[in-house]
Amino acid sequence: MKNTMNGIWLENRRFSFRDDLPVPAPGEGEALVRVKLAGICSTDLELEKGYYPYAGIPGHEFVGEVASAPGDAGWTGQRVVGEINVACLECEACRAGRTHHCENRTVLGIKDHDGAFAEYLVLPVRNLHRVPAGVPDEEAVFTEPLAAALEIQEQVHIHPEDRVLLIGAGRLGQLIAQTLALTGCSLRVLARHPRQQDLLLSRQIQVVQAGEIEAGRSDVVVEATGSTDGFRLARQAVRPGGTIVLKSTYKGQLEVDFSSVVVDEVRLVGSRCGPFPPALSLLESGRVDPLPLIDARFPLADAPQGLKAAAGRGVLKVVLDAG
Amino acid sequence: MKNTMNGIWLENRRFSFRDDLPVPAPGEGEALVRVKLAGICSTDLELEKGYYPYAGIPGHEFVGEVASAPGDAGWTGQRVVGEINVACLECEACRAGRTHHCENRTVLGIKDHDGAFAEYLVLPVRNLHRVPAGVPDEEAVFTEPLAAALEIQEQVHIHPEDRVLLIGAGRLGQLIAQTLALTGCSLRVLARHPRQQDLLLSRQIQVVQAGEIEAGRSDVVVEATGSTDGFRLARQAVRPGGTIVLKSTYKGQLEVDFSSVVVDEVRLVGSRCGPFPPALSLLESGRVDPLPLIDARFPLADAPQGLKAAAGRGVLKVVLDAG
Repeated sequence: MKNTMNGIWLENRRFSFRDDLPVPAPGEGEALVRVKLAGICSTDLELEKGYYPYAGIPGHEFVGEVASAPGDAGWTGQRVVGEINVACLECEACRAGRTHHCENRTVLGIKDHDGAFAEYLVLPVRNLHRVPAGVPDEEAVFTEPLAAALEIQEQVHIHPEDRVLLIGAGRLGQLIAQTLALTGCSLRVLARHPRQQDLLLSRQIQVVQAGEIEAGRSDVVVEATGSTDGFRLARQAVRPGGTIVLKSTYKGQLEVDFSSVVVDEVRLVGSRCGPFPPALSLLESGRVDPLPLIDARFPLADAPQGLKAAAGRGVLKVVLDAG
Repeated sequence: MKNTMNGIWLENRRFSFRDDLPVPAPGEGEALVRVKLAGICSTDLELEKGYYPYAGIPGHEFVGEVASAPGDAGWTGQRVVGEINVACLECEACRAGRTHHCENRTVLGIKDHDGAFAEYLVLPVRNLHRVPAGVPDEEAVFTEPLAAALEIQEQVHIHPEDRVLLIGAGRLGQLIAQTLALTGCSLRVLARHPRQQDLLLSRQIQVVQAGEIEAGRSDVVVEATGSTDGFRLARQAVRPGGTIVLKSTYKGQLEVDFSSVVVDEVRLVGSRCGPFPPALSLLESGRVDPLPLIDARFPLADAPQGLKAAAGRGVLKVVLDAG
């Protein structure tokens, strides 16, 4: 096997294609994974804006094939997806079973761990999940964001009778909409772009405009825009005693009137990474269909253009082909 | 019965004693209650600062005796406490059983409903609870804030294994501390004033200083100061995936870094009024003892001085004697 590989390198807020990146070496309990497809997420775009102080190979959504796994040969050749938080298993959070919140974690393509926009990556085998045979690569590459969408239901009990408002129908919002619709709840989605709206309507998901949203009538509001306007609308729309799920990060600080949050007994829930097994199960059963979200596919060498394309208004998923 | 009564009148942010207030007239389904004792709460003090645009008789913590209840004579002569939210029973929130969040509610002594700093008040009989014989007036007057303390446990599951931090040990904080201690959780209370500390220590409740609080180690943080510093400390102290209960209102807007709330999957819960029956039960059984919180007792005619005294640093409960 060669010692160098193609990949994207991020440094000083700039993505560049390189053909001389060292192929990472898996240690004990780790696997070397040959990346097949990688997905571009909004977080990747924010890396370029300096959102996280990360230098290295970006990318955390992928499907690949295990090239080698020292000490665990059963993994070799398996088609896999991988959880992105690499936990120490020793800190207080890990010992309590909350490995997503490991105090010493590295995060694939985001924090101190080279990511998926390359020919190869390394992850602990305990982070890997086999992809069922019936799930093509183009769907499997959505496992990570689909798991993040399911985290909402890990944290908040969505009742079938709930009136749920989703603000934002971008690349993550579309997956959230599909998973929430499966609960039977009364779901309405605020979607700006005609293409976002069409995708939702094609799945019989109700689309609303901001002007149609009544104040204080939603049991649960999921805010997936990461904008000040989105948060303000969420606060207006939630009913007293209701829940706002914050599913996107925000630039800078938000000003919040917490007296009204207290008087109205509103609940605000931050939400990040979620469980992979149910995400794979929903893909396998076809209950979630991410394929229409793919807007463009670029070879890895053209990843900088792919990242530019992904930043376009209303663009949903751009995937990079590392195969 | 005479037609006028003594009481406190609030107008243009000023409390004044009056001896010519009209005795309110109960309608169908309502009771006229002769106030025996009334408690001064921080909200009353904030009314003077214009926190709520209220003009009328303030006061919402009381114990009294039913003077008359047209159409429901069984109530006459009963010693009672009363829930402060007067609901319409017709709006969406009421029909869903969330009468505390009635969209058309009036609130005793706070919003469009004359309160308890007077010889008499009127409430619907459905808002009243009989006081058990073994609970003296001096304890019963704490039912409303004790119910507000219990609302935390209505909203958040406090596990016996949880590390709970309470920030603030004032008049409400002391009651919160006593109720949280009953759960068996590992409770620590940040209390500034020596008298607040002594009261907690006398009940074997652990007192901490701000410097002793480790970052990210509390499963649940209850913020009961209503200060920017209190909120900042709560945010630092809560563990990833943990819960902050906001138990006090805040002046103006707070600036919050919601990206860290999302990444750490923190939950923020606004908390207001709570259930009366368990509050009365805890008083009757002696499991909560509010008596040491009473710092001063003023006759109703001296209520303006009582309100001034209640605003003193470290002062806990001031009660007004209307009998």
